[in-house]
Amino acid sequence: MFFKELEAFPVKEILPGFFGKFIHTENMTLAFWKISSGSILPEHSHIHEQVANITEGKFELTIEGTTRILIPGHIAIIPSGSKHSGKALTDCSILDVFTPKREDYQ
Amino acid sequence: MFFKELEAFPVKEILPGFFGKFIHTENMTLAFWKISSGSILPEHSHIHEQVANITEGKFELTIEGTTRILIPGHIAIIPSGSKHSGKALTDCSILDVFTPKREDYQ
Repeated sequence: MFFKELEAFPVKEILPGFFGKFIHTENMTLAFWKISSGSILPEHSHIHEQVANITEGKFELTIEGTTRILIPGHIAIIPSGSKHSGKALTDCSILDVFTPKREDYQ
Repeated sequence: MFFKELEAFPVKEILPGFFGKFIHTENMTLAFWKISSGSILPEHSHIHEQVANITEGKFELTIEGTTRILIPGHIAIIPSGSKHSGKALTDCSILDVFTPKREDYQ
């Protein structure tokens, strides 16, 4: 199946306030998030490289001790193994891309 | 550098009518395209896995002989080595994600 429609995908709440739809390929996962204002991303790390592309709202993200408030047009690159944490300052939409794929988001 | 702002990135015209901004990480490339109506993507293939996420407009994409008209909310998964081609039916915005990274888009 080469073609997908996001509308048909189930929504999974992975953390409180983090509602995602997930596209998995052989080596990547795309996570389309709707995040409720005030939701907290506890500090964590993973082997996956991650790129976060914020498309709506404001999200405060800390990577290895550096904090930025992300708005649309901002991109965050989270290298493999980097500690990161965050907080949704408003309702947000974020597209995260991971490689390798997130087996834990299946 | 963990944080980037797309506004600051140079635009490169990779094919006629295909204007991209590129984020490269260790193992991924994100390509933010603005594509002019009528622009043609000739048939080609590459070792990179690709996921296309259309955010504005209509783009006709053919992957290994299967054709769809993509609109926002549609996702196309192009496996490594798959032949694909396309045409912008309107002005389009597309975010393509590749792994491994596109050394040819540096």
